[in-house]
Amino acid sequence: MVLAENAQDPDLSPFCGPVHLGRSLLVVPAHQQPRLGFFTPMEREEAAATGLALLTPEALDLRRWVRDFPDPGRRLAAAVGQALLLSGVAPGRIALAGHLGVGEGVEACQALAKDGFDFVSAHSMLKLFRKAKTEQQLVGIQAAARGTLEAFRRVAELLASAQQGGDCGKELWQGASPLTVSRLKGEVAQVLARHGLEQPAGNIIAPGEEGSVPHNSGTGDRRLRAGESLIVDLFPKGQLFADCTRTFCVGIPPEALAKAHGAVLEALQAAARGLRLGLPAWELQRTTCELFVARGYEAGEGTTTGYVHGLGHGVGFELHEFPSFRESCPPREGILEAGDVLTLEPGLYDPAAGLGVRLEDLWSLGTDRFDCLTPLPYELDPQRWLAHQLP
Amino acid sequence: MVLAENAQDPDLSPFCGPVHLGRSLLVVPAHQQPRLGFFTPMEREEAAATGLALLTPEALDLRRWVRDFPDPGRRLAAAVGQALLLSGVAPGRIALAGHLGVGEGVEACQALAKDGFDFVSAHSMLKLFRKAKTEQQLVGIQAAARGTLEAFRRVAELLASAQQGGDCGKELWQGASPLTVSRLKGEVAQVLARHGLEQPAGNIIAPGEEGSVPHNSGTGDRRLRAGESLIVDLFPKGQLFADCTRTFCVGIPPEALAKAHGAVLEALQAAARGLRLGLPAWELQRTTCELFVARGYEAGEGTTTGYVHGLGHGVGFELHEFPSFRESCPPREGILEAGDVLTLEPGLYDPAAGLGVRLEDLWSLGTDRFDCLTPLPYELDPQRWLAHQLP
Repeated sequence: MVLAENAQDPDLSPFCGPVHLGRSLLVVPAHQQPRLGFFTPMEREEAAATGLALLTPEALDLRRWVRDFPDPGRRLAAAVGQALLLSGVAPGRIALAGHLGVGEGVEACQALAKDGFDFVSAHSMLKLFRKAKTEQQLVGIQAAARGTLEAFRRVAELLASAQQGGDCGKELWQGASPLTVSRLKGEVAQVLARHGLEQPAGNIIAPGEEGSVPHNSGTGDRRLRAGESLIVDLFPKGQLFADCTRTFCVGIPPEALAKAHGAVLEALQAAARGLRLGLPAWELQRTTCELFVARGYEAGEGTTTGYVHGLGHGVGFELHEFPSFRESCPPREGILEAGDVLTLEPGLYDPAAGLGVRLEDLWSLGTDRFDCLTPLPYELDPQRWLAHQLP
Repeated sequence: MVLAENAQDPDLSPFCGPVHLGRSLLVVPAHQQPRLGFFTPMEREEAAATGLALLTPEALDLRRWVRDFPDPGRRLAAAVGQALLLSGVAPGRIALAGHLGVGEGVEACQALAKDGFDFVSAHSMLKLFRKAKTEQQLVGIQAAARGTLEAFRRVAELLASAQQGGDCGKELWQGASPLTVSRLKGEVAQVLARHGLEQPAGNIIAPGEEGSVPHNSGTGDRRLRAGESLIVDLFPKGQLFADCTRTFCVGIPPEALAKAHGAVLEALQAAARGLRLGLPAWELQRTTCELFVARGYEAGEGTTTGYVHGLGHGVGFELHEFPSFRESCPPREGILEAGDVLTLEPGLYDPAAGLGVRLEDLWSLGTDRFDCLTPLPYELDPQRWLAHQLP
């Protein structure tokens, strides 16, 4: 069973499609068709558009529960109990997924436990279910990737056309304005909006020292400078997510940055060559660590300098899905299979030197071919980047 | 305690401010300062930017739990248990809020129950805590409202400048393209992006028969026509949400539409005049129902024609917060108080006639003045709408 605040819930969306629903639930009885419960009659048309068998607010007796139970957890329990009853699900163990207020969810499950229901998590099961993308889901990811590529082109254009000035002559300016992180974020948001994409998980536009910590998303008023690294990591969502990272440097990169960029590109290309159906994704992480160590960098868990994170992750209705690149994950969650869409994103970070490099491509694995959905140049220099033929 | 997938969680965001954090937790021991737990060392700078006392991934011993517990629920339980231990919280009753996978949350709480913890929902408590907006939160809502006003201006401009043609000469065209729902949605998204706003809950641009069901969000390829109602309901989010609705009609409205628009505007203005500190919001819903019934419309729960929904809702980190306009809500959740930000949004719907009208303003209640944050015209006709002085 799935309990969700809205139809964009990653556990519900694969069943519902692109409809506009608030709180909803999905009962999937064994060997029967799933039933979608919705919570307001105003959403009857959106619910009908899913093509699913419906449990209406009237059938769920919601007005009665609102009247009888001022407590939201108890009220949710009554609605869920009614949905299970109407679906012929007898008391017993229920696999549970979806996302909502955890306090309310826990209270509802405690109340249902008194009627003989107990609950186990179905999140991993659903993530496995949606590990292999359908044709339509792949189209959704490709659409998000196309908007992402346009956003990168816009970023490169702004960087390539910037003049140097201001502080020590190294700041990047566009006309009378310094080029800031927030200026780039604003331009990115507009390109993505033109492609019908949102950024529910934000983005990362992180210069110099900010990019030397991988999850630093960048400070809005930070002015960009020539000769420093700039990590641009965009992960917008249409129906599904896309994810891509490039690293730029306007002007001549410091030697350490040029060297790190070379090593990261080598690692990315080695990982792409290493993609193989049936391989545990962890193997690619292991060989990437070995490559970086061979190039003189620290790598692996516990370091904050060098290669400090995992090589990638699956991408779909959530930004982070299966395949998992963790060594400790259950085998089925980590094996590369046809239908997978995943990132490869090696990086090198040096907080002491204030630099970071990450290059990330999004790959789709088919039975007989693997496609890079983010075929953008890798150059640090935005002018050389733009000189390539862009997709 | 708050468990969250990211720092944008409405239960966590008021404590954290605008930082970029993935999975995180907040322990608020009685009579002690809150502690923020984060789950990857890569987010250490973002976590530090909150100014909160921190529970680092190392302190939470996360690498150990990842190694020891392949099961996400059990792993989360171990991290939460460690956070409670480090915060000096003894086994007993924990008030729980935040949003995450409900299966994982329920499993974690079941595991912690074995150590003597039990959980009650803290969502209503936190909603009460953030019912009265701080100065800074109000600034965030005002910023979102400003972008919303700009988006409405753009919609009105497109409608006002459309030519009529196509099917029966009634379709609205812009140059060589028919004006569709998706064209308007694209323009809205771009204006909002320029203001740093996203639409995590979508929007509603619903013409004619689609607008006659309040939660129908509008079909992308639906062409707009003269003489029909067009409900535009925008609820974007920056740091916090804003929410505003206007209804347009290009050309001469049918008599039923003009009459409904007049009644809805009368109801909106009556409700605004009725705002009073100490009043239960439900009272305004009751008098709105009376007004519509006196004008010959159906109103109240159970009808799908006439006035079919509640009068409004609080707005903040979530789109729907307190004050609640429900009769059955606990009194404290429904009383109008200084600091509240809330919508008033009467509407009339006629699915048989294929028309809908809703007008929605966002109000901020101070101790000595009430401010409308969406001071836009109410005209159906977009040209007359634009002839007003816009904020």
